[in-house]
Amino acid sequence: MNWDELREKHMPTLERALGAVRTRTFYAHWAEVPSGKIYGETAHEDGRRRFEGLLHKPFQEWLQQGDGEWVGGEISPYGFPLGVHYRRLSVATAVERAQRAQRQWQRLDGRTRAVLLLEALEQAAAEFFPLAYATMHTTGQGFVMAFQASGPHAFDRALEAIATGVMALEGFAPEVLWRKPLGKGEIAVRKRFQAVPKGLGAVIGCSTFPVWNAFPGVFANLITGNACLWKPHPTVMLPVALVVARLQRALERLGIDPNVLLMLPCTLEEPLTWEVVEHPAVRIVDYTGSPAFGTELERRLGGKVVFTEKAGVNSVLLHSVADLGAVLDNLAFSLCLYSGQMCTAPQNIFVPETGVETPDGRLLPEEVAARLCAAIDALVHNPKAGPPTLGALQNEQTLQRLRQAEALGLPVLRASTPLDHPDYPDARTATPLLLEARQGEHRQVYGREWFGPIAFLVRSPSADSALQEMAALVRSAGALVTAVYTTEEAFKRQAADLLTEAGTSVAFNFVGPVWVNQSAAYSDFHGAGVNAAGNASFTDLGYVAARFGIVHVREVV
Amino acid sequence: MNWDELREKHMPTLERALGAVRTRTFYAHWAEVPSGKIYGETAHEDGRRRFEGLLHKPFQEWLQQGDGEWVGGEISPYGFPLGVHYRRLSVATAVERAQRAQRQWQRLDGRTRAVLLLEALEQAAAEFFPLAYATMHTTGQGFVMAFQASGPHAFDRALEAIATGVMALEGFAPEVLWRKPLGKGEIAVRKRFQAVPKGLGAVIGCSTFPVWNAFPGVFANLITGNACLWKPHPTVMLPVALVVARLQRALERLGIDPNVLLMLPCTLEEPLTWEVVEHPAVRIVDYTGSPAFGTELERRLGGKVVFTEKAGVNSVLLHSVADLGAVLDNLAFSLCLYSGQMCTAPQNIFVPETGVETPDGRLLPEEVAARLCAAIDALVHNPKAGPPTLGALQNEQTLQRLRQAEALGLPVLRASTPLDHPDYPDARTATPLLLEARQGEHRQVYGREWFGPIAFLVRSPSADSALQEMAALVRSAGALVTAVYTTEEAFKRQAADLLTEAGTSVAFNFVGPVWVNQSAAYSDFHGAGVNAAGNASFTDLGYVAARFGIVHVREVV
Repeated sequence: MNWDELREKHMPTLERALGAVRTRTFYAHWAEVPSGKIYGETAHEDGRRRFEGLLHKPFQEWLQQGDGEWVGGEISPYGFPLGVHYRRLSVATAVERAQRAQRQWQRLDGRTRAVLLLEALEQAAAEFFPLAYATMHTTGQGFVMAFQASGPHAFDRALEAIATGVMALEGFAPEVLWRKPLGKGEIAVRKRFQAVPKGLGAVIGCSTFPVWNAFPGVFANLITGNACLWKPHPTVMLPVALVVARLQRALERLGIDPNVLLMLPCTLEEPLTWEVVEHPAVRIVDYTGSPAFGTELERRLGGKVVFTEKAGVNSVLLHSVADLGAVLDNLAFSLCLYSGQMCTAPQNIFVPETGVETPDGRLLPEEVAARLCAAIDALVHNPKAGPPTLGALQNEQTLQRLRQAEALGLPVLRASTPLDHPDYPDARTATPLLLEARQGEHRQVYGREWFGPIAFLVRSPSADSALQEMAALVRSAGALVTAVYTTEEAFKRQAADLLTEAGTSVAFNFVGPVWVNQSAAYSDFHGAGVNAAGNASFTDLGYVAARFGIVHVREVV
Repeated sequence: MNWDELREKHMPTLERALGAVRTRTFYAHWAEVPSGKIYGETAHEDGRRRFEGLLHKPFQEWLQQGDGEWVGGEISPYGFPLGVHYRRLSVATAVERAQRAQRQWQRLDGRTRAVLLLEALEQAAAEFFPLAYATMHTTGQGFVMAFQASGPHAFDRALEAIATGVMALEGFAPEVLWRKPLGKGEIAVRKRFQAVPKGLGAVIGCSTFPVWNAFPGVFANLITGNACLWKPHPTVMLPVALVVARLQRALERLGIDPNVLLMLPCTLEEPLTWEVVEHPAVRIVDYTGSPAFGTELERRLGGKVVFTEKAGVNSVLLHSVADLGAVLDNLAFSLCLYSGQMCTAPQNIFVPETGVETPDGRLLPEEVAARLCAAIDALVHNPKAGPPTLGALQNEQTLQRLRQAEALGLPVLRASTPLDHPDYPDARTATPLLLEARQGEHRQVYGREWFGPIAFLVRSPSADSALQEMAALVRSAGALVTAVYTTEEAFKRQAADLLTEAGTSVAFNFVGPVWVNQSAAYSDFHGAGVNAAGNASFTDLGYVAARFGIVHVREVV
């Protein structure tokens, strides 16, 4: 395919993405349903076999490996070792290669880079099914979530970052003949403006969403001319290896030095993070992970561009509802989805002592609790929906955290139990634990993050005071999302004002197949970047514009 | 004036500024010539009298003063004490007031804030002449430069920041009804997007351009909804006090809490900088000043948004010229202007040992040096042009630096002497010192910044190697600007590629009334933000977009 054909193939996609980003309307370039009708009848089975064929051997698919020792040791949360090994690439070698590659890459203009990246993404999309299995068996996600999160949803987030990058790169005219009147004459200066990347970029991945959370940073770097080093979490390397290998091959075929994107395999003992991010050549760092480590990164990397997506304390308030059943079904799904291992999962459910207003009268906290537990039970014990919705716990620490929560001494509204998985008897599973807390009295507990299947029903003196407490939690601990259920316009306005001023997004009356955990590419900003949960937002202008500067070449004519 | 009238008055200006920012064409909202025909025949004299009326007493013009001790002690570089005192405002009080003011301010939309800020700027523009005298007698600038730099040029930079802020705030639709097809139906979510400021912002001013260098940060903060604390340099407070007082009064008249912009008087002994920038409520810091302190700020403020405009080593290369006289006149003016006390002043002039190509043949370095010195002498000793072009040295350290340079032992091509000022016999003046250095051998000397009237003619083995050395200096020490004189297209392309890749802007063949020291609002980005001279650029998207995030309010409909 020559350049004109490539351009013709991808420019309409870029234009649609640009349109969606500007208008925040619905758009999806990749279909989210893992259906044979869309992806081909054998695609799923082929993908599963390809995944199995990768197991128990060295990973040798990608071009730009290092020549270091072979490292590996990933274990599926569903209970078996993957046995895949990756060759280490030293940070020094990676930096040298990436810097060389960046020299070529940064000379291309934004639209050219966009077309090349879109073609590379299209080629990498051929891996959606093996990528889904690789994600499932490293993160513990259920299959459908793994398919969507590492496949179409992540790829659309990448395209969103590319489009937003193009927006920023094209914000100003690329050249001008500048004429300034002076007395009776004028002076004229010809000016050409050029975007210069700040990079190298480094993207530090997390253990739960290895592709989805990393892709915005990776593609924000690439579209703005920065070469990028991608360091996955040592327990979740296979999805990253698969996607990087495909992207590298595609770029090489397109005549681009594939070292513009490199993966750095690592181990739990030598996680490489500090070595990568503190390298003087690395000027941009994207990090997804724990608040404590993320904050430490921000502090220690003063002078670099640092984007963090940490985590916060996500709260829900039940004030008044039109259909309590629909509300609790929605909430139960949000609590069960991937066993609470999402930075957007709700943790604190505030219920006024005076009860939740419903068409059938006020429902007191204990009644709400009982009905919420019943909704969770119905989902968990649904043999078809339960296990794939909950998935497995990515790591042992989450299970330990669950034990700590159980030992808090708070009243247990719903006990957590393992959940038998029909296909994987050794899967590390746990159904949601729901504890009862009192607003204020138990702030030390519910005021911090309990990552995993752990939630608190917080009894609050009133809906107004619950709102104040939620805003205070956003200020102290941050939040990725908040949700409020209310049928009263005045209360809604008050909640919107208070919570947005505190720096968080608000979801009102989410029922049906729209969950507070999910954010839609091109429309929802993921993470506001204005509270303690992180300074990154997928994808606003700041997220891309911080990665390059503009220099000009002026000449008096 | 009611709101509709205000809008009608200022929207055309905002639109023109937005147009100029996008197209980078010439625009100036305020006239740069301090002429009676434009500003009124008595404006100059009235302004001078107003300035003199402020001397030797407490400054009591602005509303939002503190109740602390009276501090002052500014001394004119032209040789007399100003005797003005300012009441200190504690950081704690300022933060509390600014936070309260921000609550109202952040609720306004971008265009509303723009209109209010434009009206405030228009009212403050009434101070152009007293502001010019206040700037002259704190910084040492000549009168015309002081008028332009603190008046029209600074105000246009403010308007540029406002316009670029509006661009960023309006990058995405403010609301949408999002419809996602689902099976045969669809889900619909109503979304409203809201910009949330990250601030408070703090702006730390410098001693040479108290308004020009601070205004972009001040107005980038304000337009994006952040209240702003402005801490001037303790030896240059009067220009800031004048402009803040006017802006506060204008805002108050417009119904805005004037505490949205506060000045923090300080002293050399208690400069307040760390107390301000490290305050937890301050999330955005703009700094102009020395590289060492700026770098320390960047390091220590990890986790905050920090923009620095430090300084670098600005180089000029003479390769080939069409008219050497015109080139050297231009260069001489750049070296003399405000006695080299501009972060954009050239420091190193590279001349190939083989000579500079001219229509009359090659001119060897010693001949170039002699003619450059003659051009400097002609300007310096022109009784009308010399003193106001050179101005005075802002502080004693610059004079000491000059003495250090003289003691380096390098051959003196042109000696620095004091320059009698016709009006101010006690002015602290010094004409440019030009030393001879050899490329490589003296890199330790010319490779760092010598702020003030100190320049080096660097003999280079060849134009090609000079270019390499200039790029290397940009990488090691940073640069605000570089200039190359060449008549060869191939060399020009090579220079443009090499220097822009290193992260600096390049000016080719500047002659006549266009100087490398000056950057034009709306068209030139001041500081690229991609080299060691600082990470700020007046005004690119990153500079405004980093100051706010977007939260959304979603509701299932």
